[in-house]
Amino acid sequence: MPVFQETSYNDRDLRVNPTKEPPLPRLTSQPPLSTGGEDEKYEVIIIGAGPAGMMCTLMLARYGLGDTIVCYDAKPGTLKAGQADGLQPRTLEVLKSLDVVDEILNHGCHMSEVAFWNPKRNTSPDDAPGIERTSFAPDVAVAARYKHEVTIHQGRIERILESNLNHYAPDCIHRNARFIDFQMDEVGDTEFPVKVEIELEDVVGAKTRKAVRAKYLVGADGAHSVVRRRMGLDLVGETTDHIWGVVDFVVETDFPDIRKRCAIHSDAGSVMIIPRERIQGGGYLTRLYVQTTEEVSVEGLEQNVEGEKQMSKMRRGRITLDSILKQAQRVFEPYEIGLKDGTHVDWWAAYQIGQRMTPKFSLKDSNGQPRIFIVGDACHTHSPKAGQAGPTILSTYEDERLEIAKMLIEFDTNFSSMFSGKVHSDKNVEGLTHDQFLKVFRDGNGFTSGCGIEYSPGVLVQHPAPEDYPIYGDNYLNGVLRPGRRLLDSVVLRYADANRRHLQDDFPSNGRFRILVFTAFDLCEKDGSSSQAVNQICQDLIPVFPSSTIELVVLHPFSERKFEWGDIQPSIKKYAEMKFHGPADEGLYATYGVNDRAGAAAVIRPDGYVGMVTSLQGISQVEEYLARCLVKVEHDQLSPQV
Amino acid sequence: MPVFQETSYNDRDLRVNPTKEPPLPRLTSQPPLSTGGEDEKYEVIIIGAGPAGMMCTLMLARYGLGDTIVCYDAKPGTLKAGQADGLQPRTLEVLKSLDVVDEILNHGCHMSEVAFWNPKRNTSPDDAPGIERTSFAPDVAVAARYKHEVTIHQGRIERILESNLNHYAPDCIHRNARFIDFQMDEVGDTEFPVKVEIELEDVVGAKTRKAVRAKYLVGADGAHSVVRRRMGLDLVGETTDHIWGVVDFVVETDFPDIRKRCAIHSDAGSVMIIPRERIQGGGYLTRLYVQTTEEVSVEGLEQNVEGEKQMSKMRRGRITLDSILKQAQRVFEPYEIGLKDGTHVDWWAAYQIGQRMTPKFSLKDSNGQPRIFIVGDACHTHSPKAGQAGPTILSTYEDERLEIAKMLIEFDTNFSSMFSGKVHSDKNVEGLTHDQFLKVFRDGNGFTSGCGIEYSPGVLVQHPAPEDYPIYGDNYLNGVLRPGRRLLDSVVLRYADANRRHLQDDFPSNGRFRILVFTAFDLCEKDGSSSQAVNQICQDLIPVFPSSTIELVVLHPFSERKFEWGDIQPSIKKYAEMKFHGPADEGLYATYGVNDRAGAAAVIRPDGYVGMVTSLQGISQVEEYLARCLVKVEHDQLSPQV
Repeated sequence: MPVFQETSYNDRDLRVNPTKEPPLPRLTSQPPLSTGGEDEKYEVIIIGAGPAGMMCTLMLARYGLGDTIVCYDAKPGTLKAGQADGLQPRTLEVLKSLDVVDEILNHGCHMSEVAFWNPKRNTSPDDAPGIERTSFAPDVAVAARYKHEVTIHQGRIERILESNLNHYAPDCIHRNARFIDFQMDEVGDTEFPVKVEIELEDVVGAKTRKAVRAKYLVGADGAHSVVRRRMGLDLVGETTDHIWGVVDFVVETDFPDIRKRCAIHSDAGSVMIIPRERIQGGGYLTRLYVQTTEEVSVEGLEQNVEGEKQMSKMRRGRITLDSILKQAQRVFEPYEIGLKDGTHVDWWAAYQIGQRMTPKFSLKDSNGQPRIFIVGDACHTHSPKAGQAGPTILSTYEDERLEIAKMLIEFDTNFSSMFSGKVHSDKNVEGLTHDQFLKVFRDGNGFTSGCGIEYSPGVLVQHPAPEDYPIYGDNYLNGVLRPGRRLLDSVVLRYADANRRHLQDDFPSNGRFRILVFTAFDLCEKDGSSSQAVNQICQDLIPVFPSSTIELVVLHPFSERKFEWGDIQPSIKKYAEMKFHGPADEGLYATYGVNDRAGAAAVIRPDGYVGMVTSLQGISQVEEYLARCLVKVEHDQLSPQV
Repeated sequence: MPVFQETSYNDRDLRVNPTKEPPLPRLTSQPPLSTGGEDEKYEVIIIGAGPAGMMCTLMLARYGLGDTIVCYDAKPGTLKAGQADGLQPRTLEVLKSLDVVDEILNHGCHMSEVAFWNPKRNTSPDDAPGIERTSFAPDVAVAARYKHEVTIHQGRIERILESNLNHYAPDCIHRNARFIDFQMDEVGDTEFPVKVEIELEDVVGAKTRKAVRAKYLVGADGAHSVVRRRMGLDLVGETTDHIWGVVDFVVETDFPDIRKRCAIHSDAGSVMIIPRERIQGGGYLTRLYVQTTEEVSVEGLEQNVEGEKQMSKMRRGRITLDSILKQAQRVFEPYEIGLKDGTHVDWWAAYQIGQRMTPKFSLKDSNGQPRIFIVGDACHTHSPKAGQAGPTILSTYEDERLEIAKMLIEFDTNFSSMFSGKVHSDKNVEGLTHDQFLKVFRDGNGFTSGCGIEYSPGVLVQHPAPEDYPIYGDNYLNGVLRPGRRLLDSVVLRYADANRRHLQDDFPSNGRFRILVFTAFDLCEKDGSSSQAVNQICQDLIPVFPSSTIELVVLHPFSERKFEWGDIQPSIKKYAEMKFHGPADEGLYATYGVNDRAGAAAVIRPDGYVGMVTSLQGISQVEEYLARCLVKVEHDQLSPQV
């Protein structure tokens, strides 16, 4: 097209660079922090740049604290070891809310189905023993946006998180910086009471120490956490006798289900198959967890602690890559499994199953305010087959996560010992039956997928009085709204542009609370309950909280287009023009347990969890809930909101 | 988990970095090119790093030529102007095949629906004139993976393409490097006959010239292409009198369909609304194309060429941002439209509609081999409302693309003059009726979406003899296989891991040809037609072509799991373990027009287009087709294939 006149006004970078979430508003006038030099101060110091520390740092940076936080990591670069390569459905939802899930979905391995293999039944004495497939089951049995797990290299996940972090806070990870100790020094600085000592190593290996201060300290420094030890906490729990080997390699096999997650119980022992992603070069990795069976003679070893330790050590010493692969071959009989020609094993390890956790996740100052936190493996370790991840919530962190961690430890203890045990077969009449095993697997799915987690009532989780409860049904795993559980995704049809959208995409992880209003069939009535509720939210509620901290998302129950913008409460267009949706197919309201003649309102927390639920008549309770979570603004600070 | 033994073998970067497509094998022993210094030589030189040149460079780099190509761009950085911000459904499919579509889908604006507005009917003389909505229509009316267009800033698309290019060939774009001229000098160097003169500008603005040589030269240097001019070609065509203004801004309006694509015809003129993406800061951009109506007195201007030019110039001079917005307001009556408070216009321009193209897209050497090509706007310009993009195919490039370009020019001529005209209304009895307009819009959808393009028979498009034709139906727009058209996407269920997958994801853009086999119900019969066809492909056909250049994708018609790997031809697992799928729901074979009792085979070209189709008995024709596209390997070069 011949253009004869062209004028451009805005900063090009704003249109060209990756989208960034807007920071939260800062209410206090933050004194410029000295993030260098003698008197270094930060709002938050994070120790450890693994997945837990990186996620914590990324969240804080997205919320707008990028300039005032620092993450110290003792290592010179990103991950060198560590193979926590599985992502659960809820973790994928969280990564989506951070806009970092695409590469993981495109290039990770999706596990959609599990195959269960058990000792062959009905064999005659002449038959060779062996295994047979008992059944298939969906890998994810609960409602979730992604109906599968994903496996992909942990280092790749960290690289993806770090490259997103770089959009928000490019310089906040300091490497070659080892945490030494902390002190709670409220006298020296009431605002920044946490004094942290860090040892820096320069390129030639020379070490220097420095002291920095912070409001808060987060220990994400792994199972051997020094922060935890300096807090005076230990990991408490048991390590079982079960020794497992784990190996990643490109297999050559005639076992038919090698690309599915498999639980194999044979008379020779147990193996779990975790298919992995395609690697550069074209092959697909497979991970095997192999229960080892090395028996060690106890002769000459006394039955005491010393003797047990030594026995363990002897048993461990017998585990080699070769012994793991040979044992796997015994379990797979009559199928053959081995390393593909021309390839070599990618990684292998041996470990003892143990479930250990600390009794506390945080430490308070003299005013009772929690100042030091531990997250991730620093809090608990467990077998690698029930891995979890979850976001961090500051003030209620310990209340909510400690309970979930206990549940995780308990589940993992049962699941892994059951898996390490034998299944009932012709030869083994004492083991679990397959149906018993399957039941534990299925019942655990809400928990292991991360989609069935329910936080207990507390500051951030409020159950309504029974008379105000607008929700019917109790199929919470399939989406029925329940305070303490995450908001299930749905496909909706946006009114403004007729696009099919994922409801969860209106809840990006940027620190905002949202009010989700299910309007009723009276939406077009000027004085109906729907209009009144929306009006109350927009006129009385949103303006009394700091600008942009509360967003509005509105659903309507009409499956056909029955109204124009002019027919409904104008606040909906003003506050939620692009967050106003109807059903993309039948059943939207029923999924959430909302009656479309009565409607409902829910507060969705910044982490995507339902904080509270109320009827359209109970909006004042929404305000009470939010007033406990957020400060209100003074009247003279009120400014026009959009 | 307490790990007591851990060993890692492979290069970590291979597991952590973004996935790269494997390069094509190089058959000739390429002498190391001197890509610097006195005797600089490249396989391909690309002029221009806009979308067309960047796409061409990216493709070549992905095919493995990254070290031996160079792209020169006269400008110092990426896009400063240029607002080709719309992506058609087929373009999105191509971007997906390049693994660069996610950010575009996540952050672009999706246009799913079009609203048609026309002058109010049945108005009484007392009524104010105005417009009313006549109907909605889906924006994409043909079968496609993405049922919408996307709008997103062109500079962002270029940044995304360049960052993908950087994985393959980080240094191949040279900026501040202006193309001056080329010479075909076959005497000086028969292998690198294209001699190119480039002017380099250093940081202080000093200019130097140098000569470089190449096998091929691609001119992607835009509507004012210097490569084209040096080829002795002109853009031929017409510029109409229609003057349009275009403006991007955040609107404040009570017009109800502002977030949808709209074609508005009022008695005051025409406007097209193109909703745009959300921008940093939270607003959503809207683009308006506004037909201007400035009338210019012709007094004193003679009716000759000079006079016309001057009149055009006068008319153009009257177009200002203000005049465009005022005219838009007249068309929108009785609705109000204006700039949102606190924002300012992002960009505006004025242009005359014109459709121009060159009669040739390439230039041959004395042996008849094409050596110089032009692509993108260098070939044709048209109105911005029917934009297209397409991949580049070397040897058949001119044959296929010249014809499509002519169709584009013709379509755009009709469509844009129709859109610039008036619609029949009470006041205007001569215009098109709305139904006529809608018909042109719908009929054009296969073309404008890019999904209905059909290349004519030629080297790369071969229609089978009627007796061998295994396809029924002719609903090509909805997926029926047709040589010359792109392979429609479908959701399939992968046999190996029970994952739901997109069939198009087995056809990434990495230069490979693929044979897509629709096996028949006789799949499990050892001597059935399906087994024989697969066997013939794997044993006789794939091995005679260079290693890895031909891939196998296999479909089966069983909607339930009816067989084990051991029940089918072993070649399927060996060659297509992870590219072997069944229907995810009913109708998979019917979509492609394949009878599930007979089966079929198709060759899919590297650009995703169907090259040829044949019955399972006609595999020898597949070999003949491929032998025309690829060299065969000598027998002693044969090596084991996987």
